[in-house]
Formats: sequence, C-alpha cells, structure tokens
Amino acid sequence: MRDVALIGGGLTQFGELWEKSLADLVAEAGIGAIMDAGIEGEDIEALYIGGMSAGRFVGQEHLGSLAAEVSGLSELHIPATRVEAACASGSLALHNGYLAVASGMYDIVVVGGAEKMTDVAGTEATNILASAANREWEAFFGATFPGLYALMARYHMHKYGTTSEQLAQVAVKNHHNGMLNPKAQYRREVTVEDVLTSTMVADPLHLLDCSPITDGAGAVVISSMDKAKEYTDQPVRIAASETAADSLSLSERSRFDGIPAAMTASRRAYQRAGVSAVDIDVVEVHDCFTIAEIMAIEDLGFVEKGEGGRAVEDGLTTLDGELPVNTSGGLKSKGHPVGATGIAQIHELMLQLRGQADKRQVADASLGLTHNVGGSGGTAVIHILEAI
Amino acid sequence: MRDVALIGGGLTQFGELWEKSLADLVAEAGIGAIMDAGIEGEDIEALYIGGMSAGRFVGQEHLGSLAAEVSGLSELHIPATRVEAACASGSLALHNGYLAVASGMYDIVVVGGAEKMTDVAGTEATNILASAANREWEAFFGATFPGLYALMARYHMHKYGTTSEQLAQVAVKNHHNGMLNPKAQYRREVTVEDVLTSTMVADPLHLLDCSPITDGAGAVVISSMDKAKEYTDQPVRIAASETAADSLSLSERSRFDGIPAAMTASRRAYQRAGVSAVDIDVVEVHDCFTIAEIMAIEDLGFVEKGEGGRAVEDGLTTLDGELPVNTSGGLKSKGHPVGATGIAQIHELMLQLRGQADKRQVADASLGLTHNVGGSGGTAVIHILEAI
Repeated sequence: MRDVALIGGGLTQFGELWEKSLADLVAEAGIGAIMDAGIEGEDIEALYIGGMSAGRFVGQEHLGSLAAEVSGLSELHIPATRVEAACASGSLALHNGYLAVASGMYDIVVVGGAEKMTDVAGTEATNILASAANREWEAFFGATFPGLYALMARYHMHKYGTTSEQLAQVAVKNHHNGMLNPKAQYRREVTVEDVLTSTMVADPLHLLDCSPITDGAGAVVISSMDKAKEYTDQPVRIAASETAADSLSLSERSRFDGIPAAMTASRRAYQRAGVSAVDIDVVEVHDCFTIAEIMAIEDLGFVEKGEGGRAVEDGLTTLDGELPVNTSGGLKSKGHPVGATGIAQIHELMLQLRGQADKRQVADASLGLTHNVGGSGGTAVIHILEAI
Repeated sequence: MRDVALIGGGLTQFGELWEKSLADLVAEAGIGAIMDAGIEGEDIEALYIGGMSAGRFVGQEHLGSLAAEVSGLSELHIPATRVEAACASGSLALHNGYLAVASGMYDIVVVGGAEKMTDVAGTEATNILASAANREWEAFFGATFPGLYALMARYHMHKYGTTSEQLAQVAVKNHHNGMLNPKAQYRREVTVEDVLTSTMVADPLHLLDCSPITDGAGAVVISSMDKAKEYTDQPVRIAASETAADSLSLSERSRFDGIPAAMTASRRAYQRAGVSAVDIDVVEVHDCFTIAEIMAIEDLGFVEKGEGGRAVEDGLTTLDGELPVNTSGGLKSKGHPVGATGIAQIHELMLQLRGQADKRQVADASLGLTHNVGGSGGTAVIHILEAI
C-alpha cells in the first residue's frame, strides 16, 4: 500500500438550493475539485461518488454514470462507482477511492458526495432518512432518526449525568463556527436558551439539537503521493482510512452509550497512522444530533467515556479550545446533505491543514481526524489527515 | 496486483418470492456462499453488496450494514460497502471486491447482490427502473427502459436488417436454457410465434422480448489464489475484472448500434486476461431485452457488428452451439432482480467452469465471460473467469 494524498477539493453552497438540481450540484463540486487540483479531465482514472438516497429524493440512481456525464468525462469510459452507506456514503466512497489509489491501481481519482434533499416534503424526508435504519424492525414501527438518537441521549444522561444544557452547548458552538463559514446553511448564533426553548422533536432532543435537511455536494481529488507533488506544494496525506460496519438495528449493538463501530474504526485508524488521540489538532465529527458529538469525542478517545458533556461545557472543543471540533459548523450549522457530508468534512480539514480556513483557521493544525457515521451506527468511517 | 479466485457461491430461487423479504434473500445467498466455500464467518475481512434501488422497492438503504447484521457478522466490525450502478450493481460490487483482494488489502471477501422488486406495483417498478436513466432529460419526459432499448432495436434493424424473428429467437433460446435451470423464474419453452404475438410493449419489443420483474439474491466468496487453494480444489480464477462508465443519457453516446462502454470494457478485459474473443467457451450477457443480447455478442467481438441477429438465427449461441450464451436462461428466463443479476451471471459461470451445471453443462468449458450493463449503457462491467 502506497501513500495517498488529497490534492484538491470543491464544495457547493450548502442550504435549500431550489434553483439547482442534483446534476448541477455534482457538476459544480466535481469541476471545482478538478480546477482546485489543477488537473485535466483526461488525468482522471476513476470516479467514486457517495450518495444515500437520490433514488427517493429525486428519482435518480446510477450516480456514477451521472457524474461522468455532467463532468464531461463520459467519453473517457473510466470506472465510476456509486457507494452508499446512508449518511456515511461520502467518506465510504473516499475509503474505496483511497484503496484504489493505495493499491497502485490508479494514480488520480476523483471522489464526490452529493444529496439533493429539499425536493420532497419534510415528513417524506424523515421517512427517506429512516431507510438508513432497519426498515422491517425499526422504521416500520415508527422509529425515526431523532427517535433513535433520543434513546441514546436518554441513556447517556441516565448513565453519566449528561444534561440538556450540555447538549445545547454543542449547538451553540457549532452555530458560532458556522457563522464563520460562507458555505454553511445557517449562519447565525444560537444560545443555550434558544435550543432549550425550541420545539421538542424527540425528548430530550429539541429542534435545535438536530441537523437540518440540506442540499449540497462536495468532491476531492486524490492521488499517489509521488504524483501529488507534481500538482501541489501542499498535499494533504491520508494517514489512515478505516471503516467498520455494525448491525443496522440499534437494538443489536453491544452497547448504547456510544457507537461501537466508531470506536473500532478509530482504534484501527490511530494504529494505521501511528498516532494517538492526543496528537490530533482539529476534528470534524458527525453531529447529526448534539448527543452524537458528545458520544463521538468519547468514542474517538479524546475524553473518557461519559465525560463528553462536561468537556463541551468546559470549552474543550471550541474554536479556541484545546481540541477544536467541527470548525466548519458541523452537520448542525453547516448543514447535512447526507451523501455529501463525509466529503465536506474532508474538505474542511483540507482547508485547515493547508492554512486556508480563514476566520475559523486553527493555528498550527497539522493533524486532523474526520468521523462520519451511517444510520444509528451501522457504519463508521474514520480518516486521519496530515499536512505535509 | 495478485491473482484472485472465486471459491464459493450461493444463489436464491429467482421469481416472485412473496414470502421472503430483502433481508431474507441477502441472508440466504450470503450464508449459502459461505457454506459452499467452506469458510467460517470470522474468516471474512470485508463485505461488498450490489443493489440498485432497495430504497424505492422496499424503503431500505444502507445495505452493507444490513448484510452484516443478517449474516451474523456485525460483531466483527468489518468494512461493508454497498455499490450501485443500476442493473450492473452486482458485478460492479464484485469489481470493487476484486480490487480489494488483488491489492493485497484483504484475503477473503464476500460479494453479494440483491433486489426485492415485487413489493411494488408493476407500473411503479417501471418508474423505479427509470431512475437508472437520466431522470431530468429522459425519464421525466416519459422514456422507460423498454422505450430506450426499442430505440436501439429500431436503429439496429434499420442499419443492419435485424428482424423481429431474430430478436424472438433470443427469447426462445433463453427460455429453453431456463427450463434446465432450477433457480430460473420462468421454466417453460416459448416459440418465435409466442414472442411475436405477445403484447407490444415498445415497438419493436414485445412482452416476451423483455426480461421480467424478479426477486432474488446471490453471493460469492473471493480470495487470493494462494488462500483459495486451502479451501477448494476447483478455484475459478478471475482473469479480468474491468468496467467502463459512459453518459447516463442514451442521446449523449458516440454510437447507438451497441453499447460503447461494453466495447471498451471488454477490450480491456481481453487485454488484461491475455486472451481474445475466440478463446471464450461460455458467456453470460445482459439480455434485459432481446436486442441487448444481439448487440452484446457484437460488442464483445464474438461476431462482427451487425451480424448478431444472423448469428442467433444460425444457432451460434445455443446450448450446443459453437458459443453458448446465457446457459442460465439469462435475464429473460432466469429473471432479472437488478442488483443480483451481475452476481448470478458469475455464479452460473462458476458452476460451468467447475463442471457443476448439470443439464446445461457446456462440455470442456474452461474460459467464460460475463457482460453486465447498467441503464441503457451508462455502466458496463466485464469479467473473464478461468477454470484452474
């Protein structure tokens, strides 16, 4: 296995993009990544694209071929693979692209992620998202994602004394960061009181504990490290790309106070990269709900299990804290176009490690980690990125 | 890149399986493959699963995690990737699993494919299948797959004199073969007259020119060749696994008398395997419509472009012909559970190359080829398999 680097990226605006189709978003992100990397279309040897449910959101499957067409690459007849693992689709696509380059099969690969979610009504979006859970044994009986994460939140509160105020603090921090990100869906501050007085969605999760429905797409160009140096002075090395699957059903997990697949995948990633949690400078985690960010910083080993709520309260994870988490605004404020989210996390860390994150730049960031989760934890994907 | 072999496979019955869910089918095929290979669950290092549109057919995405759960593998926390490329999903999943083993990343990988299509009405199934075409520029305006293939059929007839009787002959042959396959959906002979007098679906394609709506799943176990020899005396070598993407829209192709991506992918596959078309003993092609089989044998170089209809008429491709095509009954008679089809093709050739194809066995078959197409040709995947 050889070294692989990120050499460019593109990201669309995130939000309710009524005037753009899925194809428009894929093209914009893909062409943005190609231009940022300074490659030609003919240099691309394979495409991977992550998407969760374009089939249901906009009636479009076969996204690999779509991406080839809208990027003007169809005549190259390159391999194009769409990868799906619910909300972890984007980073699982990157994992597969990474393997293809690391193996020596290809030198330059483009990996995208996209979701166009606002063309359906909100209730239908909730139903579509429930197809990431076990349809026969969870969704059929009325379980939704806010409901499943609310179960985990209640358990975490019961077991460790985590409070609603601590959950709210995650939203406050991420909205603050999102204010500084021009691509974010919501660029406004919220207070703890705003969160606690917002509509209850699934007790104890309020509306402002939940990430939104979002349109958006992202893409990155990866290459072998040797090749990367021909295109950029600032390649970002993929020091680890690890994934783990667990049961689709929450009820089948070995524990409920965290995401076991994320624990396993991060342990493997630290080992692969030869680093430990204390070495990480900046992190993007999968805060689909505020409780998810608290569990994530525990699952990733940044704090002891059960200490996540207090760590957030103490400011560990703020932009000027010891371990900035979700500098992009996270899923909560930047938005969560499910298939694009994993790629957007990578894009944010690429900017951080290149020193291009503008007002949300973390000083001297040289090692970053992304944590992307599918469903209630059926899939977890961890990447560790390193500035070269 | 190291040698990769098939060491086992499992296939469910194909048909209208009212009493089985998608999860049941995935479990049955996966466990069948594991038992056939003689491996233990703990030996499996990664899972790949192809599925086109379980999100729309049964409201279930996140098939990698589903497969891990129903196969009892979730506690292993192995990587699980769902791959989608419309009707080529199954073999594109195999292509990705193949790369993962060939690269040295994993030794033993299970690759499945599944689709549960009969839980929706026929008209809705047609609409779901149209999500393999360009939704905005084809399906939105009423194009269906029978319609798109009918355009290609008319063009082929106009340009080369291909006749409705020649198209019908494909169905007659495949139904004959399907009679001999206990897993096939339709086990009855049809005549040319039956085809020509069946309901016109999209002129010139009659009902019996079309493959059916089917439930089914398949799975195979692949491993490095070194490892394969520990488990079986009859490993089947994957001599080539090649794929090519083209435009999603039929109108954007470079030609309309065949599938350009299939031409490219097969050329690459012959080169990779170091063989040519004349060396192939047995073939499974993507006969979603009868015209597709005629174009396929031309695109793959078995006959000159335009000669496919006459070759079928002359008996080239019958079970006792010079080049048996679709000994399984093909999509036409065996059935076409879209995400499973690519794996079912591989399964059929695995049986042929092991000498286990019973009444449809091709004598002395040692080299086989599968041809799996997504949409109207937006994806093509070619595998060449070799008996060792």
